[in-house]
Amino acid sequence: MIIYGDSKSGNCYKLQLLCSNLAIPHRWIEIDILNGDTQTKQFVAKNPNGKIPIIELDSGEVLTESNAILHFLASESALLPTIPLKHAQVLQWQFFEQYSHEPYIAVARFIEKYLGLPDDRLAEYRQKKQGGYKALDIMEQHLAKHHFFVDEKYSIADISLYAYTHVAHEGGFDLTHYPNINAWLKRISQQPGFQPMA
Amino acid sequence: MIIYGDSKSGNCYKLQLLCSNLAIPHRWIEIDILNGDTQTKQFVAKNPNGKIPIIELDSGEVLTESNAILHFLASESALLPTIPLKHAQVLQWQFFEQYSHEPYIAVARFIEKYLGLPDDRLAEYRQKKQGGYKALDIMEQHLAKHHFFVDEKYSIADISLYAYTHVAHEGGFDLTHYPNINAWLKRISQQPGFQPMA
Repeated sequence: MIIYGDSKSGNCYKLQLLCSNLAIPHRWIEIDILNGDTQTKQFVAKNPNGKIPIIELDSGEVLTESNAILHFLASESALLPTIPLKHAQVLQWQFFEQYSHEPYIAVARFIEKYLGLPDDRLAEYRQKKQGGYKALDIMEQHLAKHHFFVDEKYSIADISLYAYTHVAHEGGFDLTHYPNINAWLKRISQQPGFQPMA
Repeated sequence: MIIYGDSKSGNCYKLQLLCSNLAIPHRWIEIDILNGDTQTKQFVAKNPNGKIPIIELDSGEVLTESNAILHFLASESALLPTIPLKHAQVLQWQFFEQYSHEPYIAVARFIEKYLGLPDDRLAEYRQKKQGGYKALDIMEQHLAKHHFFVDEKYSIADISLYAYTHVAHEGGFDLTHYPNINAWLKRISQQPGFQPMA
């Protein structure tokens, strides 16, 4: 299996972390978003949406969308519950991540860390901060009563949310007042096979 | 099972359509977004994110996020493939829908149909149109070679994408030049148990 990913991207790190947790062999091909590598004719032929990560199987089949890839790679592992309600709760948190978390925290991080907070993105940046804090509040509230997001066990829901939460400070988020998130971040980093982001 | 939903919302219609396709009994409680019903203390106690749809089971457990709910309700039905790669492809299209389609097409529709295109949202509206057409282009390209999104069979991936695509014109999208999307929309409306949006 080949993973096409950018080491700077939290969405790509999700796959690195899972592959490390489960010792899944793979070849990594570095794709530089800032260099326009996701918009080349060659890449868009693999993913018309021009986004990473994607995986390419030995059969040549391509799968896109980080959280869908996590499901594929974790199927039949302990990191993905099979009981329908628990399975759906994993998805609930992953859709929350892609709709209410990543578009705020990852984008704020991109504007601050990679674009250097240019004036013409400041209004957008402030709006992203607001949405990001709302997502963090929801996570903090959940983690006040739970050790992990689903079924009190480490799962791919935690991996999805860990990816950008643990680098939220790079988007200007102050996590000082989120003790339960901080305890959970530490818990993730203590899982077997944990690998930090590059 | 209780579904809390707003009949104007495509995300909520996904559940209505699936329940109709599979004849799943449920009680519908109407929640009016424009009236602020998703921001009441009572509702936020059920979903801290203040979003619909949600379902409440007889056990009192609540599940949020439309596409996660579709997975729960369709598990063990013909509308959700079990082969891991096909299952992951369903998720791929559903994450595409929530990240690259709904935030553009549903929001453009909201600004045009429900807010009446106010001047202070015009710049955002134009940006939403651009993103929405990109999503439609990707769908058109896929449907040029396939009858349905996954495995040549009607699945919950089609339901997720149908919800806002079939009302995209209400957000000012012109679907005239998308013959394959139009043929697919018709195909969905011919599925057993199809129910139109209210």
